[in-house]
Amino acid sequence: MFSKETYAIRRKILKEKIQNGLILLPGNKAMPFNYGSNTFPFRQDSTFIYYIGVDQPDLFAIIDVDSGEEYLFGSNATPDDIIWTGLTPTVEQLAQSSGITHSGEPSNIADIISQAVKQKRKIHYINPYQPQISLMLANLLGINVNQLAQNQSLALIHAVAEMRKIKEPQEIAEIDRTARTTAIMEQFIIDTATDPACRESEKSIRAGLYRIFMKEGFFYSFPPIVTTHGEIFHQPEASKERLKPGSILLADIGAESDSHYAGDMTRSIPVGGKFTPQQKDVYDIVLNAQKTVFNTAHPGETWLNVHLTAARVITEGLKNLGLLTGSTDDIIKEGAYALFFPHGIGHLLGLDVHDMENLGEDNFGYNQNTPRSTQFGLCNLRYALELKENMTLTNEPGIYFIPYLMEKWKAEKRFAEFINYDKALTYSNFGGIRIEDDIVITQSGCRILGMEVKKEF
Amino acid sequence: MFSKETYAIRRKILKEKIQNGLILLPGNKAMPFNYGSNTFPFRQDSTFIYYIGVDQPDLFAIIDVDSGEEYLFGSNATPDDIIWTGLTPTVEQLAQSSGITHSGEPSNIADIISQAVKQKRKIHYINPYQPQISLMLANLLGINVNQLAQNQSLALIHAVAEMRKIKEPQEIAEIDRTARTTAIMEQFIIDTATDPACRESEKSIRAGLYRIFMKEGFFYSFPPIVTTHGEIFHQPEASKERLKPGSILLADIGAESDSHYAGDMTRSIPVGGKFTPQQKDVYDIVLNAQKTVFNTAHPGETWLNVHLTAARVITEGLKNLGLLTGSTDDIIKEGAYALFFPHGIGHLLGLDVHDMENLGEDNFGYNQNTPRSTQFGLCNLRYALELKENMTLTNEPGIYFIPYLMEKWKAEKRFAEFINYDKALTYSNFGGIRIEDDIVITQSGCRILGMEVKKEF
Repeated sequence: MFSKETYAIRRKILKEKIQNGLILLPGNKAMPFNYGSNTFPFRQDSTFIYYIGVDQPDLFAIIDVDSGEEYLFGSNATPDDIIWTGLTPTVEQLAQSSGITHSGEPSNIADIISQAVKQKRKIHYINPYQPQISLMLANLLGINVNQLAQNQSLALIHAVAEMRKIKEPQEIAEIDRTARTTAIMEQFIIDTATDPACRESEKSIRAGLYRIFMKEGFFYSFPPIVTTHGEIFHQPEASKERLKPGSILLADIGAESDSHYAGDMTRSIPVGGKFTPQQKDVYDIVLNAQKTVFNTAHPGETWLNVHLTAARVITEGLKNLGLLTGSTDDIIKEGAYALFFPHGIGHLLGLDVHDMENLGEDNFGYNQNTPRSTQFGLCNLRYALELKENMTLTNEPGIYFIPYLMEKWKAEKRFAEFINYDKALTYSNFGGIRIEDDIVITQSGCRILGMEVKKEF
Repeated sequence: MFSKETYAIRRKILKEKIQNGLILLPGNKAMPFNYGSNTFPFRQDSTFIYYIGVDQPDLFAIIDVDSGEEYLFGSNATPDDIIWTGLTPTVEQLAQSSGITHSGEPSNIADIISQAVKQKRKIHYINPYQPQISLMLANLLGINVNQLAQNQSLALIHAVAEMRKIKEPQEIAEIDRTARTTAIMEQFIIDTATDPACRESEKSIRAGLYRIFMKEGFFYSFPPIVTTHGEIFHQPEASKERLKPGSILLADIGAESDSHYAGDMTRSIPVGGKFTPQQKDVYDIVLNAQKTVFNTAHPGETWLNVHLTAARVITEGLKNLGLLTGSTDDIIKEGAYALFFPHGIGHLLGLDVHDMENLGEDNFGYNQNTPRSTQFGLCNLRYALELKENMTLTNEPGIYFIPYLMEKWKAEKRFAEFINYDKALTYSNFGGIRIEDDIVITQSGCRILGMEVKKEF
């Protein structure tokens, strides 16, 4: 938790931006594992963390923009609770730790909200992603759960996104810290997998990561991906088989600090230590694309342009390998390159690994002048607008050979003028390569967060 | 997953018990971490696992008891899904793997249910603990979420509990397997903490556990407790400080197998390797109580009696130490011992660590002749009825010195005739001791599950 002044100042700025009405900031609840009282580790809502900072379940903050008053609601421990969980701070103490004057029982929430509803005051909230919170909020507002999305406050979303997307120095320090732990995790994987005598499996290597981040009291920012099937982006499985020399181990992993900032890093590692010439050719294209992003990202540039610049490097590289052919401009414009690079070049990073995804990326990552593309691949870019100093993002180009997709497009004769399908299909067992680091936009460019981890093999 | 015949037979028995109506078995959904698409590891519902076996989110099974027909509903992967998550089995294939004939899109669920509602057929379901499932079920049944609990099927709960509480040989083998991994985890903690040169902390030791269970593709059955404050039962925190020789490290941990059976084991370990004489005195009482349970648990005996027998050993031991005084019978009857032993002697263990807690323990752990006690301590006993062959349980006596509770009771002069508060309060920094193993009831007694782990220090 930062100083209580930090949260007070953030709320003050938020009030100035919102101007009037009532802001509801429900904290998260613990989520059931296999029954109500056996829960997953508690994860506080990121917007709640940002404005309130208190890392405990079942809290509810209200900011009255008109009166300026701030409230934190929650239940104090009962004698029985104290026996089972020990002495814990009161809600009043929690409120004080965040610089909030008023605190009270959750039963008071309904009164404040129903009064505001009666007075037809504007009530600002963000559509919740935790279903318990949806139920509670719908009850409090006297509306149906299905109506929550349409009634959420775009003003609140815009204000929150505007603030959260530019990181304070203390936030950048936290992201640096979690990126460093992420780098240590990645280094452990590299050391293990490049050892010619390696006897480990994807599963055993992945298990080792838990020890590293848990030791610091950290968690992961997303479930770690450790796979020799890099062409499957969301591979939840890890094989128990011993890693085969000659394969590529893709490790896309991220620690989450105890302050809940995310790291996110990928290395594509030659099992046994050396790439084959074919692997090296593809790897070098991805590495070039990543270097280009480092050299291109700076305040004033748009992230969409950075994406397209990286796509150009990838396209040129694939043309050199004979996998693409024709005009680079046309390949980029039509999106033919996306067969091999079907995701965005990177995303905002912060209290969430895809920062503020729950606010709706179109609400802050795009605007009327720059609407989200509908093109395959480019439509997955999560942020397209201008880069500003102290924004934190990932830089993660990749090249993949997805047999299902190559066969589907070939059958559809899609971009047949640009794509050499016969050659591409000879890469069907190749897998995929991605190289990812975290960056912060500086005054004139960008710098890497955490620390450098080997990427030349 | 067991053979499809296993699930078919279990469903056949269930249908015979339920006799008529429609049984709804919704599978679980993945639970959001910090936004909708970043989820905790998926945990299937245990009753769904038991009758269907398919370990994937967003499925819904329906058993028509009258016609005998069985259905599995879910969505097949879209082309986009396949790009992101690879090729996955179709719902039809999943249904076949469980011996289910009919499969279909989730949109069919509403038709079947609304038709049954119209025909006023009995609809059996268990009140869900996942809020998304509650919302979905309430919508499907056309009732309010708040009405779900009162309309759940006690007949279904009784039938499920009757089946799940007696374990099949293949289930016992799985619990043996996860208890073995749990034992390896516990042995790692013992080896680490009893080393006089130990430089580890609660946190670093706890982190090591993750590596052990994750390596096997297991998870935990509940968040591991590794603490020198054993008197706090649900201690979610682990200190970063180096363990202090002379303290007692209580490690209450459990692996969950990839088949989702739970292990649950506790050791109370002298940091540095040797107990003080005072610690040893208390430890030996707990150890005696645990031995008594091993010798007492057998088919035909009630678990309530086993609890009271253990409470008697604890009472006699505490009398010997001068902490309790007076008639043992009276101390047991009045529940004065519960100041030091405020929880039950153990609980059913299976697909859940507190097996079937979501069915409501009073629905299967108690009955009209044996209602749950309202006495402090004894009211926490989760199962009171007769033991039967192939039931699996934990055996976990403990003695704790909870400063808050001792001071509260002393101030209230509660059981002042039985409790030597002045002496008890000299133990205020003692902490707590618990020793726990998993057992299966055999034909004539019980045996330990997994493997023996050192408990004499």
